[in-house]
Parts: sequence; structure tokens; C-alpha cells
Amino acid sequence: MSIRIVLVRPAHPGNIGSAARAMKTMALDELWLVSPQRLPASEAIALAAGAEDVLANARVVSDLQAAVADCGLIVGTTARARHLSWRIIEARGAAAEIAAAAETSHVAVLFGAERTGLENDELRLCHILLTIPTGSAYTSLNLAMAVQVVAYELQLALRARTGIDAPSKDGPVPLASATDMEKFYEQFEQVLREVDFRDRTGYLMARLRRLFNRTVLDQNEVNILRGILTAVQGKRRRAGDPHVVRSEPPP
Amino acid sequence: MSIRIVLVRPAHPGNIGSAARAMKTMALDELWLVSPQRLPASEAIALAAGAEDVLANARVVSDLQAAVADCGLIVGTTARARHLSWRIIEARGAAAEIAAAAETSHVAVLFGAERTGLENDELRLCHILLTIPTGSAYTSLNLAMAVQVVAYELQLALRARTGIDAPSKDGPVPLASATDMEKFYEQFEQVLREVDFRDRTGYLMARLRRLFNRTVLDQNEVNILRGILTAVQGKRRRAGDPHVVRSEPPP
Repeated sequence: MSIRIVLVRPAHPGNIGSAARAMKTMALDELWLVSPQRLPASEAIALAAGAEDVLANARVVSDLQAAVADCGLIVGTTARARHLSWRIIEARGAAAEIAAAAETSHVAVLFGAERTGLENDELRLCHILLTIPTGSAYTSLNLAMAVQVVAYELQLALRARTGIDAPSKDGPVPLASATDMEKFYEQFEQVLREVDFRDRTGYLMARLRRLFNRTVLDQNEVNILRGILTAVQGKRRRAGDPHVVRSEPPP
Repeated sequence: MSIRIVLVRPAHPGNIGSAARAMKTMALDELWLVSPQRLPASEAIALAAGAEDVLANARVVSDLQAAVADCGLIVGTTARARHLSWRIIEARGAAAEIAAAAETSHVAVLFGAERTGLENDELRLCHILLTIPTGSAYTSLNLAMAVQVVAYELQLALRARTGIDAPSKDGPVPLASATDMEKFYEQFEQVLREVDFRDRTGYLMARLRRLFNRTVLDQNEVNILRGILTAVQGKRRRAGDPHVVRSEPPP
């Protein structure tokens, strides 16, 4: 399948061009741009320096969801270790997981805007977070530099896998796509309403999303979980629960 | 002792600034410039972006020999594997050797000019050559990007030697114990029976255990999931489902 690099709201065209070049040096060529502030720009093209093809083939979309809808593994990058609900993995270990997942699924690696990084609603789409280890005094990697380091680790991880015949731990089942997961979360939310589960914090669905995204479900697993939700709904409907909203008339 | 990054005849001030920033993110601060074509330059300062101190403290010399005279290990960087007389080591392995040598000696890592790399008389000073693995189709890393990758590997290698661990990524909430998890699985299995979910394979609970174990739940999360299961059971009991086995008499 493929590994795509997704720049979310990049502000500086120069960084886009430099990121394209960084990708190409490491044999990555699928660049997605979500709402770039300016493009095309001569500065981007100048800094691409031999990777103009990566830049020319970049997919530009206005919504992050559109860039990751068919991806089985979505990896956010972060400079901070404050995101307690995600598994945060250093670049080297994360690259190994990405290379493994890419054998069956599309994978997206998200880089946030230069100043702010990824926003909370963007992080919510992520299964794991990748962090680049730095010195402690000054941790501010330039965006394109971060792409270079991650692409470098991906290149090494991909090379390590293609050389090694070890059986994949994940098996041949493709990972659940972002679209599959959205349907699962919608059904889960519906079940929670049907059983009158009280959400005292207001963050219940956000927490459940983080919890299940962290697991990185494959397609069989999400089907099993949806089957269980359907069984809960079906059984309750047969039991004549008056709170269940029916779309069809009762038998 | 110290590790110095030596840029030999760099042409573009922007690359000098970017290299300074790349070094600082990885806690390296000793920058030497051998015959830079232009310096100081506003472009270098702009791209240093927080690493102006590294730039301000850079030693500028006209002769490479002056930059490496007191060094015990001199490492050249090269994109090409044509230098048959040297041991050529990939960045990761070279970083380990550099970190080891830096415990007793000054070490210099040399980066050549953007277009030409290190010349033969510069290579002659080197003990080993370092190469950054790239894809095969396009191998042209930008100078500052190459400094970033090498600095990143050096940072990891130094950390591995000093034994300073990465800060723990675990949040303050304790993880769910094995006992907590057993109670959760027991309740889950009970709910599956109550909703008549058919286990066609006979391995359903084993799969669910793998799925949730992989997530590594914390105590809050397992409590939320058990609360949802309890809501499913409670709602169904109130609805008068005859299949529910009660341990206490109905009200």
C-alpha cells in the first residue's frame, strides 16, 4: 500500500518545497497538503530542487478527513509529551510500526502547522503519536527538518522489513479505514444513547475514540465490535424497549 | 570532550542558519565554518530561528586543518560510496562510534560544500566516512538536512551511552491491573450472552482480549468501559428481558 506525508495547514511554501525534497531523498513520493496558506509559490518550487515531481503530484485538500479517509493507520507528529491519552512513540519505533502497517494498508503521517502543531480535533483522528527525540534545551525542529528525520527513519524501517522474511505479526487482514472507524463510532454513540449511558464529563466519545484509535483495529476486529453493538441494539429492540427509536414499524 | 560540526566552504548562508538550528535541536552547539562564501548574512540569522547563539559562537577559519587540529576523530560525510580507501559507515553506526570517541576526545564531523561535497585533500584528513542512507532514485540531501539527520543520530547515540532515559510517556493515571481486566472481560462475556451474540468461531473472547490488551487501558478507561456494559445490562433489565439472569429478586 502506501505511506503518505500530510502537511496540515503549512504556512510557508518554502517548507512545502523542502519537505518534498526531503521525502524524495528517502523514496517517499505521496505528499498531501491540507489547506496550505499559499500554493503554488515560486519559493516552494525553488526549494524542491529536483523533487518538483513530488510537489506537482501533491494532493491539495481543504479538509484533513479527506486526506486520511482510506488510511488504516494515522500517525500524528508532536513535539510535546503532553498528550496523555495516546501512545507516544519515538520516531524509530514508530517507523517500524508504520512500515509494518503499510504492508496491508494506507498510512498517513500528519505534520501540523509550523507554529501550533496539530490541533485537538486533528489529533483525535490519530492512532498513535510520533515524537522526534531532541535535546532538552531547544526542541523546535523546523517543519521540513522534521519531515526529513521521519522520512529517514521510514526509509530505514522499510529497508529492514524488505530484507527480513519474518512473518508479519499483524497477519494479512487490512486495517480498518478511517471511514470504517467513523461508522463504528457513530453506532457506538447511538447505542450509548439507547442505553441511557450518562456522560458526566462531556468528553466520553472523545475518550472512546482515543482508546480505540490507540488499538489500531483491523477490519475483522471492527466488524466484530460492530456486530456486538448490533446485537445489543437488536436484542433490546426485540425486548420492546420503549426508548428505542425505530426507523421501521414494529412487527 | 566535544563534537563539532564543521561546514567546509558552505555557499548559502541560509544553510548555515538552518544547520545551526538543526544542531541546537539536538543539543549540539559547536559550529565551525571553513571559508564560508558569505557571512554574516541576514538570511543565516533568520533561518537560525532561536539558534542565533550557535551562529554567534561559530568559529570561522580559513583552513580546514585549523578546525580539526585538536580532534581525535575526524569524520567526513559523503553521499557517494566511491571512496574505497575509507571505512564508510551509515549514519547510525557512525554516530555510535562518534559518541564513544567523544568521551575521551574532540570529534569533528565534516560536511562539504553543497554542490561538490568534500574534496580529496579534505577527505584525506578523515578517519572514517559517514553516509546517510537514502532511496536509490534521488540521493541529494540538502546540506542542512544532512546536518539534521546526523545531529539526530548523534543525540540518540549520546543518550544511549549516558543512559539518560527518555521521559516517561505514561500519564499520571495508573494502568488497569490484571485483576481489573479480568473483571472487565467477565462482565463483557456476560453481556455477550445476554444479547445472544453468536460466536461462530469459538475464539471471540480470545480475540477481544488481544484487542483490548493491546490497547493497555488505564484505570479510568476500564471503568468507563465497565460503566457502559453496566448501562447495557441495566437498561435491558429495566426493559424486562426474560433472558437476564438475576442474582437478586426483582423489585
